[in-house]
Amino acid sequence: MPLLENIGCLATCRSADDQADIGLIYDAALVWRGGRVQWAGPSDEIPGAHGGETRYDAGGRLVIPGLIDCHTHLAFGGWRSGEFSDRIRGRSYLDIAAGGGGIVSTVRATRALDEDALLSRARAFRSAMASLGVTTIEAKTGYGLELDTELQSLRVYARLAEEAGPRIVSTCLAAHVVPPEFEDDRAAYVDLITDTILPAVAGAELAVFCDAFVETSAFGRDEARRIFETGARLGLRPKLHADQLTDGGGAELAAEVGAVSADHLECISPVGIDALAGAGVVAVTLPLATLYLDQEPPPARTMIDRGVAVAVATDFNPGTAPSYHLPLAMMLACNRQRMTPAETLKGATRYAARAIDREGEVGSLEVGSAADFAVIDAPDVDHWLYHFVPDACRWTVIGGDAFHGGPLEPVSS
Amino acid sequence: MPLLENIGCLATCRSADDQADIGLIYDAALVWRGGRVQWAGPSDEIPGAHGGETRYDAGGRLVIPGLIDCHTHLAFGGWRSGEFSDRIRGRSYLDIAAGGGGIVSTVRATRALDEDALLSRARAFRSAMASLGVTTIEAKTGYGLELDTELQSLRVYARLAEEAGPRIVSTCLAAHVVPPEFEDDRAAYVDLITDTILPAVAGAELAVFCDAFVETSAFGRDEARRIFETGARLGLRPKLHADQLTDGGGAELAAEVGAVSADHLECISPVGIDALAGAGVVAVTLPLATLYLDQEPPPARTMIDRGVAVAVATDFNPGTAPSYHLPLAMMLACNRQRMTPAETLKGATRYAARAIDREGEVGSLEVGSAADFAVIDAPDVDHWLYHFVPDACRWTVIGGDAFHGGPLEPVSS
Repeated sequence: MPLLENIGCLATCRSADDQADIGLIYDAALVWRGGRVQWAGPSDEIPGAHGGETRYDAGGRLVIPGLIDCHTHLAFGGWRSGEFSDRIRGRSYLDIAAGGGGIVSTVRATRALDEDALLSRARAFRSAMASLGVTTIEAKTGYGLELDTELQSLRVYARLAEEAGPRIVSTCLAAHVVPPEFEDDRAAYVDLITDTILPAVAGAELAVFCDAFVETSAFGRDEARRIFETGARLGLRPKLHADQLTDGGGAELAAEVGAVSADHLECISPVGIDALAGAGVVAVTLPLATLYLDQEPPPARTMIDRGVAVAVATDFNPGTAPSYHLPLAMMLACNRQRMTPAETLKGATRYAARAIDREGEVGSLEVGSAADFAVIDAPDVDHWLYHFVPDACRWTVIGGDAFHGGPLEPVSS
Repeated sequence: MPLLENIGCLATCRSADDQADIGLIYDAALVWRGGRVQWAGPSDEIPGAHGGETRYDAGGRLVIPGLIDCHTHLAFGGWRSGEFSDRIRGRSYLDIAAGGGGIVSTVRATRALDEDALLSRARAFRSAMASLGVTTIEAKTGYGLELDTELQSLRVYARLAEEAGPRIVSTCLAAHVVPPEFEDDRAAYVDLITDTILPAVAGAELAVFCDAFVETSAFGRDEARRIFETGARLGLRPKLHADQLTDGGGAELAAEVGAVSADHLECISPVGIDALAGAGVVAVTLPLATLYLDQEPPPARTMIDRGVAVAVATDFNPGTAPSYHLPLAMMLACNRQRMTPAETLKGATRYAARAIDREGEVGSLEVGSAADFAVIDAPDVDHWLYHFVPDACRWTVIGGDAFHGGPLEPVSS
């Protein structure tokens, strides 16, 4: 049984409640077997049965549950760096979208790639994310917007999930925007989603969640409700892109349809916050998107104070959040969303797991959970997120196996 | 003569004017000898004399002048991650300082270190900065605030400058804050600076610049003016920490005393902007400090439009900007200061060189300038600063020698 000892600070995140409680244990050890945690606790309390035939040395570092990026658009073609300069010069996101840029231009580039090319790009991103401590990635479609390409993106995720590396949880976001070919018949595109795409996705068991972008430039609440109702019948739980650019009542809809998460929320209303709290919907904040769109941050502080579980993710996509750097998103959550480092860590581990309906399985280090963890070159969580360095993650371990950083360091006897 | 070919995009930054003009050449080559650039231009125009006995392959990547971090507090003891959480919970920087935290707590920790310990810490930061593409670092004192410790920090910088790695330009910031032992006699501390510290620093040729923090919590304009007048007599050119937390007329003072730069400027007034423009003072913006202090960004757009050269630096220090990540500061300048990637690059190369009075020597790639450059894993500047990745810098070359990334790749024939 492998045993990791000399952990300077272990954040177990084993409490389901209280965003600030990350279950810290100083001078700790961790034991796992068969890819699952057997024991986690203070070094001087290791039970004899868990002495460990293989002892590794954490070097006094911080150990955290593997990070969970619970909102990404991992597979896409092309890039949109030109829009970055355009936005800096003052062009609005909605104006860029109206001019044929934005999501639709990525749709064109994604449709132009074959499955292997798409896989190869997504694989490179996933490996780079692992080097930052990420062990689980939620991955959305939404750049196909037609049956074949939506399925192709999901097959890419399924194939990636078979390879060593971060776990993949797939979401069908066929309701990302209305594709150009349906511009004059929105209802027909919603029909395509409900009658063709979602049934095919569910039939092939290629996704767990069904997502929709509820926004002036994308889908209305009634359209989204129809999509979620179909998804639910097919066993796909709802997630929402909600209240990002305008307050469109997305949070309220998330509560109404029993969504597992409502994401973005820069423009959420007080009524929306109470709706999330009442329905136990996780609020997924996306500080990189907020930054790149030069928006005011979502009211994370208020949400936490009213009892909403607030997660933090990257929104990695080629337009509005073109970085997969989850620790950077976390540092931004501290500085711009006024979340403490502890609250932020909980938001990128346990509450991120809740946002993908995997709480207890991943995102915490407790008996029976996955042995997914990151060994961070910092004495504690505050220091890690404060002293932002490019290479803080020394090792990333997934299912008990070191994936990034080479083999764990054996204890020298 | 070494020749780097197959440069997909070369940003020479050879124009002194126009912040947006970074002298781009696509499909370029670069020739150097004896640590200096001999030729830079399009691949199909390489003069026969510069065929190069040693040919290296940039792999189609972006090549930029080595980055210049023109505002850092590189040598310090201790850390202040606890204040990070305190600020997030709403405690103000001035309140923390009033409670014995802030700069004064770093002064205590810095005084407690011996010279070798201080050197060892600064050396590690400097190497990490080089891995991000930084080839020149301005390094300030200001955590000694007494003769011996101020000199010790400057000796650390002088020793570092002798080692391979980024160039070091030293600044005496004895006027950082009034140390606790002079709390009841500010004038005596200003006397100590003018009569003892600055003469000793200049006598030992340990610094090029004399800096002062002009702020309610630090030094008034009259105090700073005295310090700068003394510095100027001793050959130490002025730099200012100006208008960071309040508009204290720092920019106007910078113009009045002929400062080479005025730094921070979050609260600069329109009059201050015109003063900088009129006097040709570089405005050094520090997006990480702005972020960590949760401030509104300085009016970079307005400054550029009124003809001020705007530089971008980290302000690396253990309190308000605890990251030495200059590319991150640059990405933040794009997103929060509405500077285009090109303007931002100019601000971290040529205009940063101007802020340390080294323009033409470093910060640009033109005949006779230092062969300091970074090879970036990106097709162009827009893409580099947009797709923020942890390891974009493939090689850092200083004075013609590869310092980070191993030896340059020879052209395979």
